[in-house]
Amino acid sequence: VITILTGGTGGAKFVDGLRRVVPPEELTIIVNTGDDHEWWGLYVSPDVDSITYVLANMLSNERGWGVRGDTFHCLQAMKELGEPAWFSVGDRDLATHLLRTKLLAEGRTLSDATAHISQKLGVRSRILPMSDMRVDTHVDTPAGDLSFEEYFVKRRYQDPVKAVRFVGAAEAVPADGVLEAITSAQAVFLAPSNPVTSIGPILAVPGIREALKATSAPVVAISPIIGKAAVSGPAAGLMVAQGIEVSISGVAAAYSDFLDVLIADLADSALAESLASNRPQVHCTDILMRTAEDKARIARTVLTLALPEILAEPAAEAQ
Amino acid sequence: VITILTGGTGGAKFVDGLRRVVPPEELTIIVNTGDDHEWWGLYVSPDVDSITYVLANMLSNERGWGVRGDTFHCLQAMKELGEPAWFSVGDRDLATHLLRTKLLAEGRTLSDATAHISQKLGVRSRILPMSDMRVDTHVDTPAGDLSFEEYFVKRRYQDPVKAVRFVGAAEAVPADGVLEAITSAQAVFLAPSNPVTSIGPILAVPGIREALKATSAPVVAISPIIGKAAVSGPAAGLMVAQGIEVSISGVAAAYSDFLDVLIADLADSALAESLASNRPQVHCTDILMRTAEDKARIARTVLTLALPEILAEPAAEAQ
Repeated sequence: VITILTGGTGGAKFVDGLRRVVPPEELTIIVNTGDDHEWWGLYVSPDVDSITYVLANMLSNERGWGVRGDTFHCLQAMKELGEPAWFSVGDRDLATHLLRTKLLAEGRTLSDATAHISQKLGVRSRILPMSDMRVDTHVDTPAGDLSFEEYFVKRRYQDPVKAVRFVGAAEAVPADGVLEAITSAQAVFLAPSNPVTSIGPILAVPGIREALKATSAPVVAISPIIGKAAVSGPAAGLMVAQGIEVSISGVAAAYSDFLDVLIADLADSALAESLASNRPQVHCTDILMRTAEDKARIARTVLTLALPEILAEPAAEAQ
Repeated sequence: VITILTGGTGGAKFVDGLRRVVPPEELTIIVNTGDDHEWWGLYVSPDVDSITYVLANMLSNERGWGVRGDTFHCLQAMKELGEPAWFSVGDRDLATHLLRTKLLAEGRTLSDATAHISQKLGVRSRILPMSDMRVDTHVDTPAGDLSFEEYFVKRRYQDPVKAVRFVGAAEAVPADGVLEAITSAQAVFLAPSNPVTSIGPILAVPGIREALKATSAPVVAISPIIGKAAVSGPAAGLMVAQGIEVSISGVAAAYSDFLDVLIADLADSALAESLASNRPQVHCTDILMRTAEDKARIARTVLTLALPEILAEPAAEAQ
């Protein structure tokens, strides 16, 4: 079993690559839920949804979130009813939120709801929310204390970031199966996700970081940073606010207590060499994922580094 | 002010006629909520919605319910997720249910939610649910005790009806404004709605029937029955189960304690004459509403009978 820690659009792209080169039954994905929020009275779990949709081959590639080819008629009607409309929910996407909210209202856990929905959509990988308890990522800015989605979507991450907090993390426990998925994995991958608000909330759940240190599996991260900038999204500003250098060096330092290998871009080869004496080991390749071929190639590179034997026989690539 | 008691598709058609010939501010509509039910975790109020949509000029004329031109992508996605899909909710229609459910969850009453939504949609008439307390119409059949929507939509009213019950009616109180809208009206109209499951639940709320008896306004009903059959829907079978004759004579008897005038179809002229000595007075006209012109004509007929002075000056007809 290969276990992936993920969040955000970079994470979904990486998982998209893996599902193309590994039998999906072999993948367990531990997903950030710090972005979860209530919208129109429904429980929305953006990162869980993106991973579910990508594994169900339903994710919109253009948008990087939501359902491919979805319409937005309910959203338009909500707008006309005077309701907030800054968080885009498609009509098909809405079904996922409705069903999850109903299952949670019936007393099911987020893990149960996630398993139920992904199974109905034909997903054969295992998707685990990091915790069944609420952990809310808050971004403290001069404009106030914002929920992650307010900061990221509503205000398009334009506010200077003073601090990031994971409200509820200290009291949270990992969802069933999360620790075991890390300790019993053949390999653990950290997707090229924002280290602060995608991987950060996962690591803030007590026990998960310890499991990463304890596991005998190789732990491999793909850098979300190339040079001095994030491949996409608000990672750079958030890293600065958390005192993390915006470079592969900063990423390596943030994960230094458990990371074995960092996959960096070829553009960072010089810096990679200067880091050579320390853990983690740094391996450079082209890490930009533009096409399905890019995604599969990176997945194969990561697998080869972590589990040379797994790719010994050429796998039939999935669509 | 003109007050209308209504439910079902016949009721929406009648209100559609009235809004074309009377300033909408003059109309107060008291609506059946016995069909209200939870669907996908949302609070759906089918008759309130139909009246809201017709007054907002949004009702689908082809279907007689829901929003004109609506799509059903969320419904399709729910079906694919294995959820029940026998109750059709359109994508735009869904916004109404989401907002209502959210307002109720915030502690607002159904009256408040109805006023909020109708105001946002530009409705200038007053729409009052019969009660802010739950009254659930149950239909007892050989197949079991069904909710009204199960009987009507899911099973297409094919089950023999043993009895009809309005669960919660005895403890319910009329919503704010309902009794006053009846007692202070210039005229009270009963739409050509099913007397058992559309008008019946309204009359089952303690105080409403008494207000109809007490009001000094003329009370005029349009028959939902022509000859020995309902114009549409399951009224006939439900009337038989309640011991009401399926004829204008049965309708007159059901409302005899408060009704002044019954508008019947020309096809029932002979029977109307035989009823001439009793209350209510029966007036025959063509009551089938196929077109917008039919609806407006019937609205004018009813108004002329109830309030001859109101149509003295030719009104500018609304679209």
